[in-house]
Amino acid sequence: MANMEVAKVAIVGYGAVGAGVARLLLNRADRIARFAGKRVELARVVDIDLKRPRSFALPPGLLTDDLDSVIADPEIAAVMELVNDAVAARSIVLDLLESGKNVVTANKTLLVEHGRELFERARKLGRSIAFEAALAGGIPIVAAITECLAANQIESLHGILNGTSNFILTQMEENDCEYSVALAEAQQCGYAEANPEPDTGGGDTAQKLAILAHLAFGARVDWRDIPRVGINNVEIDDVRYARELGYSIKPLAVAELVPEGLELHVSPMLIRHGTPLAEVRGAYNAVRIIGDAVGRIFLHGLGAGQMPTASAVISDLIDSILGRSAISFRTSNFWASDQQAPVTLRSPDNMPSRFYLRLNVEDRPNVMAEITGILGRHGISIASVIQHESEEDAANVVPLVIMTHTTSEGDVADAMKSIGQLSCVYPDSVRMRVRD
Amino acid sequence: MANMEVAKVAIVGYGAVGAGVARLLLNRADRIARFAGKRVELARVVDIDLKRPRSFALPPGLLTDDLDSVIADPEIAAVMELVNDAVAARSIVLDLLESGKNVVTANKTLLVEHGRELFERARKLGRSIAFEAALAGGIPIVAAITECLAANQIESLHGILNGTSNFILTQMEENDCEYSVALAEAQQCGYAEANPEPDTGGGDTAQKLAILAHLAFGARVDWRDIPRVGINNVEIDDVRYARELGYSIKPLAVAELVPEGLELHVSPMLIRHGTPLAEVRGAYNAVRIIGDAVGRIFLHGLGAGQMPTASAVISDLIDSILGRSAISFRTSNFWASDQQAPVTLRSPDNMPSRFYLRLNVEDRPNVMAEITGILGRHGISIASVIQHESEEDAANVVPLVIMTHTTSEGDVADAMKSIGQLSCVYPDSVRMRVRD
Repeated sequence: MANMEVAKVAIVGYGAVGAGVARLLLNRADRIARFAGKRVELARVVDIDLKRPRSFALPPGLLTDDLDSVIADPEIAAVMELVNDAVAARSIVLDLLESGKNVVTANKTLLVEHGRELFERARKLGRSIAFEAALAGGIPIVAAITECLAANQIESLHGILNGTSNFILTQMEENDCEYSVALAEAQQCGYAEANPEPDTGGGDTAQKLAILAHLAFGARVDWRDIPRVGINNVEIDDVRYARELGYSIKPLAVAELVPEGLELHVSPMLIRHGTPLAEVRGAYNAVRIIGDAVGRIFLHGLGAGQMPTASAVISDLIDSILGRSAISFRTSNFWASDQQAPVTLRSPDNMPSRFYLRLNVEDRPNVMAEITGILGRHGISIASVIQHESEEDAANVVPLVIMTHTTSEGDVADAMKSIGQLSCVYPDSVRMRVRD
Repeated sequence: MANMEVAKVAIVGYGAVGAGVARLLLNRADRIARFAGKRVELARVVDIDLKRPRSFALPPGLLTDDLDSVIADPEIAAVMELVNDAVAARSIVLDLLESGKNVVTANKTLLVEHGRELFERARKLGRSIAFEAALAGGIPIVAAITECLAANQIESLHGILNGTSNFILTQMEENDCEYSVALAEAQQCGYAEANPEPDTGGGDTAQKLAILAHLAFGARVDWRDIPRVGINNVEIDDVRYARELGYSIKPLAVAELVPEGLELHVSPMLIRHGTPLAEVRGAYNAVRIIGDAVGRIFLHGLGAGQMPTASAVISDLIDSILGRSAISFRTSNFWASDQQAPVTLRSPDNMPSRFYLRLNVEDRPNVMAEITGILGRHGISIASVIQHESEEDAANVVPLVIMTHTTSEGDVADAMKSIGQLSCVYPDSVRMRVRD
């Protein structure tokens, strides 16, 4: 392969993923050359911090804090943007595009906040932006939706897209422990940040769902408008009751085409044991798609982490070098301003679902009749009930768990409001969607 | 989209998949145009049988038995070869390539029998052959291995690649029925042919595994050389014992890189409940890949059938029209004669595995000691044993089920030979691999 053509590339942002990418480029050079049809030479690695220790030692002379040395080098045709901060990344990507580089990014926030501006600029300049690594790490979900399923009307998409949240819920289930204990474990293992809120609050998942909804349904939606519930209020009692009913609680992102439009939401949901989504454990991610031709397809893998993300970045880099990204980018028209009207979002009130309800009620006659009476008046039919005998020495409060048949979010919300006003019902009732 | 460029295409072989493809091309024209960047016009459908009723009614004038009308039309740039017979398909594909067409095929036998000849010819002529639909239908396994995982050394691949076999084993497990009953059910549902042997005997799976081993490991192997055991001898008793032990029996194809080379085999195996492969039910296919960067990735979907296969054909067709297939084909060098040496296959005798053993033994003292003594002398350690109390009126034969710890195929074969010579052991013992 000595006579092979050489493609010079650069990394901007030398954190964990950057170090993983550099490791693959340098240690897997022959393999990558075979797939790229050229030897891929890492010409520059740019970071503002030259001192911080990294997990991979670059050959001397590669690391620089001078972005201009990349921009000014016309031989560098493809650049991997792996900067964490979306505002800094935006201006870096614009500079790279203007100087004629094709860009590979792993930054989902960059896409949701600045996708339209950057993609329009790239199109005008005849450049491409590849972003497989920005979504679900090692799972090739962008390629699956935009290439492999091109013949399909996608009907629904269910994803476990946040490894931190799934790790925490899996710990709670497998170790029968409280949320706070599982969170501490996740932080100790490096699966959760010191401030876990973007992950556990559902924001990270909502950003990913906004991108997937665009790719799969052409929807244009601000991720902040997606109804979302984090996993940070899931209690161990609910994990236990769910198991007793034959379900696991999973952090779901849902996009579903319905007659009135597109339904999008992010929330912990009860998923029936024995279905593929229920078996997604620990830090794994998964996406289940139903297409009208292909039927049900399910992709499962590590959604984050240094090497899975680096693997996706290299795949995009090879596509960029080969020119496959340019072709895909030109035809797919992501975030184009002249694109067809966005799909209407359906109001959450009308979303049909089965529900899991847990109420703390007084242990006295007629309580069940009052509660089920209210559910009945709202047209909500009960599928199953758990009320265990209370312990002799317990206070006069018992948990009452109800699984409903399919009803709507709005009806359940109304019924729960009425139920909450009963004198026999204590505050802090729980409501979660159920998926069989 | 009235001003869009037009790409003329043709179908050769108008069976179930051909009808599915025609349906998508005609009913999904706008969607396909959006992804292909051109309007895709189905210009000709060729079949030797013009009379047979089909599931999709073509517009008049499209169906012809004259292949030359395609070959002679220089405007037709891409042709989908959907003929069942591999010998006929070979000569059709050669003619298509010679006349300058890019080819999309769904024919795996064509690839294993004539792949090298056809791919070399296509490379010489500057044409491409796309074959996502030839493997695992709607699961984008070719794209996953050859594009998305390009940065990875693939370490192992486990697949459920034959929907017929998986359907039959699932029926046996879920309905607690004999093989013959499940096979009849599969035939009635259209999942099994009148002659089920190519599916249930493991030949179909071995062909697919040979192709996957080539894509993932660069191996060149004749599918007939892959050790294979069909599912046609799986007994309901073994399905029951497996369940009791916490396993399901699945029709597995395995390719695994080991220090001595590549291990390939096809056989029914016990897969532990709660792992993703154990949850693959009915006619579904799945592939689990471990890559050294990406970790474990799992793809699950319908591996055959009219519309899932048609979906994959259209995806390849769009890639061909866009020129992405040409790029992939040029760089990937499938079945090239100057390719690196094939990976050495490891002898089945050295393959390590846990094993499930079922013996029919005499119900008398010392039997267990004699059998476990032989296992011990072969260095085989026992993980668990099931022997249920025999019924009062039963004959003097009881089944003895043994799960071993990891050992080698060769040692187990030797031990079973010695055990078979014991007077207390009846013929027809069963041996299957186990995967946790």
